[in-house]
Amino acid sequence: MNLSLPQIEALRQILGDTNVLLDEADLQHFGGDWCRQYSPKPSAIAFPTTTEQVQAIVRWANTEQVALVPSGGRTGLSGGATALNGELVIALDKMNKLIETDVASSTLKVEAGMVTAQLQQHAEDLGLFYPVDFASSGSSQIGGNIATNAGGIKVIRYGMTRDWVAGLTVVTGSGELLELNKGLLKNNTGYDLRHLFVGSEGTLGIITEATIRLCAAPKPATVLVLGVNEMTDLMSVLASFQQQTSVNAFEFFSHNALEANLAHSGEAQPLAEAAPYYALVEVETASEVETEAALACFEHCLIEGWVVDGVMSQSEQQAASLWRLREGISESIAPRTPYKNDLSVSVSKVPAFLAKVDSIVAEHYPTFEVCWFGHIGDGNLHLNILKPEELAVDAFVEQCKAVSALIFEEIARMGGSVSAEHGVGLLKKHALSYSRSEEEVRLMKQMRQLFDPAGILNPGKLFD
Amino acid sequence: MNLSLPQIEALRQILGDTNVLLDEADLQHFGGDWCRQYSPKPSAIAFPTTTEQVQAIVRWANTEQVALVPSGGRTGLSGGATALNGELVIALDKMNKLIETDVASSTLKVEAGMVTAQLQQHAEDLGLFYPVDFASSGSSQIGGNIATNAGGIKVIRYGMTRDWVAGLTVVTGSGELLELNKGLLKNNTGYDLRHLFVGSEGTLGIITEATIRLCAAPKPATVLVLGVNEMTDLMSVLASFQQQTSVNAFEFFSHNALEANLAHSGEAQPLAEAAPYYALVEVETASEVETEAALACFEHCLIEGWVVDGVMSQSEQQAASLWRLREGISESIAPRTPYKNDLSVSVSKVPAFLAKVDSIVAEHYPTFEVCWFGHIGDGNLHLNILKPEELAVDAFVEQCKAVSALIFEEIARMGGSVSAEHGVGLLKKHALSYSRSEEEVRLMKQMRQLFDPAGILNPGKLFD
Repeated sequence: MNLSLPQIEALRQILGDTNVLLDEADLQHFGGDWCRQYSPKPSAIAFPTTTEQVQAIVRWANTEQVALVPSGGRTGLSGGATALNGELVIALDKMNKLIETDVASSTLKVEAGMVTAQLQQHAEDLGLFYPVDFASSGSSQIGGNIATNAGGIKVIRYGMTRDWVAGLTVVTGSGELLELNKGLLKNNTGYDLRHLFVGSEGTLGIITEATIRLCAAPKPATVLVLGVNEMTDLMSVLASFQQQTSVNAFEFFSHNALEANLAHSGEAQPLAEAAPYYALVEVETASEVETEAALACFEHCLIEGWVVDGVMSQSEQQAASLWRLREGISESIAPRTPYKNDLSVSVSKVPAFLAKVDSIVAEHYPTFEVCWFGHIGDGNLHLNILKPEELAVDAFVEQCKAVSALIFEEIARMGGSVSAEHGVGLLKKHALSYSRSEEEVRLMKQMRQLFDPAGILNPGKLFD
Repeated sequence: MNLSLPQIEALRQILGDTNVLLDEADLQHFGGDWCRQYSPKPSAIAFPTTTEQVQAIVRWANTEQVALVPSGGRTGLSGGATALNGELVIALDKMNKLIETDVASSTLKVEAGMVTAQLQQHAEDLGLFYPVDFASSGSSQIGGNIATNAGGIKVIRYGMTRDWVAGLTVVTGSGELLELNKGLLKNNTGYDLRHLFVGSEGTLGIITEATIRLCAAPKPATVLVLGVNEMTDLMSVLASFQQQTSVNAFEFFSHNALEANLAHSGEAQPLAEAAPYYALVEVETASEVETEAALACFEHCLIEGWVVDGVMSQSEQQAASLWRLREGISESIAPRTPYKNDLSVSVSKVPAFLAKVDSIVAEHYPTFEVCWFGHIGDGNLHLNILKPEELAVDAFVEQCKAVSALIFEEIARMGGSVSAEHGVGLLKKHALSYSRSEEEVRLMKQMRQLFDPAGILNPGKLFD
């Protein structure tokens, strides 16, 4: 499908000439996202500057039967914002203004194209805090975060993006404008359509504005990196810290993930003694008492033998450098063409699940190296299978898909999720049935049809 | 509509003889809720003991075109669980078992009929905490709490019931069994139907089981009661405490609410100097430092002139007795036949809204006394209009409805909610359009039809 010249002219009428891009480089840049498995092929990129323009485009697209792909910061990892079939991309980049500051209500109303880091800065300027944070905060946009219900590194303490959305302005697939929940903290007046839009991946409507809740600025914190021999020990460490301290983050990575990161950064080993797995724990230490509790918990874990070696930050700088051990992993393994899976199970099932996956890979693909990291306090594991050097990419991806099917069967058996925080998009739609029942998928399809009867919004995403 | 003898026989086949009640006293007791404005008229009360039995009843009801009213602890205040037209009541009272304890994941899986206080006790037994709490915790059931998204006195710190639901087992109106979210913390696989069921008031399906998140046990706390002259001062007090301390609760009541409570309980005035409004603040004081911060904040509010007099608890007993000043209000004004409204606006709009409502009542019904209390930290105000002694109840209710219409118009103008935490049920369905747009209501109706095509579930509730 391609747009005709009169169609492009109509778009220019709505948006102005400079807000419709057709150059091949722009189509490539704005037509894809960080999921690099697809070749973008949009027909044009539209940059609305107001909600009214979004509504005008959607109504026009309904009349013309033009498919639309909403696009935020394009940092998604499941291809949810990728245009493959000549769709018109609606890029929210120019809708990035702060609309309203309400300090008494601890909320900010912003346009959906505001970059996450900018939102975080606005919050900080008020002495407040927007706590959802992840590696792509410098590029991702709040609208996209909401559409994928983005998670990140502080979920154990602060929850997902969902938990911070007090109101949404959306244009549905049929071009209706909805003001959902209006920034209220309490509003029990029927079905909460706001929550339906969170995580809907652009298939029900286009989010144009959001009212975001803020919280108190974070208190001083201390970071520990702890080496453990067994995943069951890691769970004991988690339980101890949760009982004795206020945990801000509880991350984990495998030894080869650390090795890759250190090789890439040139930094030194954090611990004298290596271990198969490491936990990175951030705890609130607003007072002497809390710092002592964290230290006591650390010592307790050493005495119990759960932790073989560890380090506790003594300064903000040291805390930041320990964080880099976790945050640098993704970049450091990128040259090894990792095949990524973003999985979750109940926290209690993490050790059994990890062992099962390791054994599946070892049995079927003994030459594959598995690199683990993730947000273990939330039951969320990022499984990265590294490509053996001698294997061609295509063959590698094929084999990874085969092994993924075995892993997804295990996920289904354990009642887990095939997409913990990345969303479904294009990449996971074949796997949806491992986490959602036939009845649920049927209901989702029917609901999609209510909001987008002509089927113009992000077709082919989530499900066919 | 009444059930025929063969229909009653069929029900007994599904549930056993003792689990179908037909006596008039039982019909009255199980056919209503705490919203006393309606006369219950169910045709029978069914007590399923398993999810399978619920499913069997719903399927049977579809075949027989029998309307069903799901019923929990019957503590609802909007008539959501009231059967007025010969419906079959599905009472969850016998489904009250603990199904699974998962300490590592900090979750409990329970049947929907478990009483809130029992759930709180199970959490406490594990050294954990279920933080949603309200006056009816001793009777309300977790399924009913979820179906109305119950709020209460700790929302400012811990959020609504919605925030603690990790998984739901529901039987839809068409008799399908859905396992929603399976207790996971992270699961981004399409539309989150779990959140659609939270607050759906029994119109989409019957909740039979729930996986509930728990949190760490609360730390020691201190309670303050502070008298203020102006609502704007109260907002300054709120902002100060939010900046300087960890606020667990920020409640408020007007002077006549306090007077009514003291007259009823026989207790003494808490403050030497009376004030038009009072704030009850509970702050976490786990350490000396936090206690000092709370005291400093109190003193700052006195110096600024926001607070005219106040008291800070020095013991758990004193804290409990201060809490009774707030918690006893509802009971103490009950003899005055209060006409209740459960309203919310953005926190920043509270003073303007309260002044507006006071002036509406004073202008149109100068003989009415207005008694205010509520969860002001959430923007949630309970407006109680007290009946003048000489006025007949019917005439009073008529006049209150007229004044409510004016108040709801103000709510609509301010983007507030006509039902902050009580739900819509029968009582507020005429007012739904003040808080939800025509398009939203149309979408809600269409969604209801997807889950309950035969329209047998709680007909007439939420909307017609």
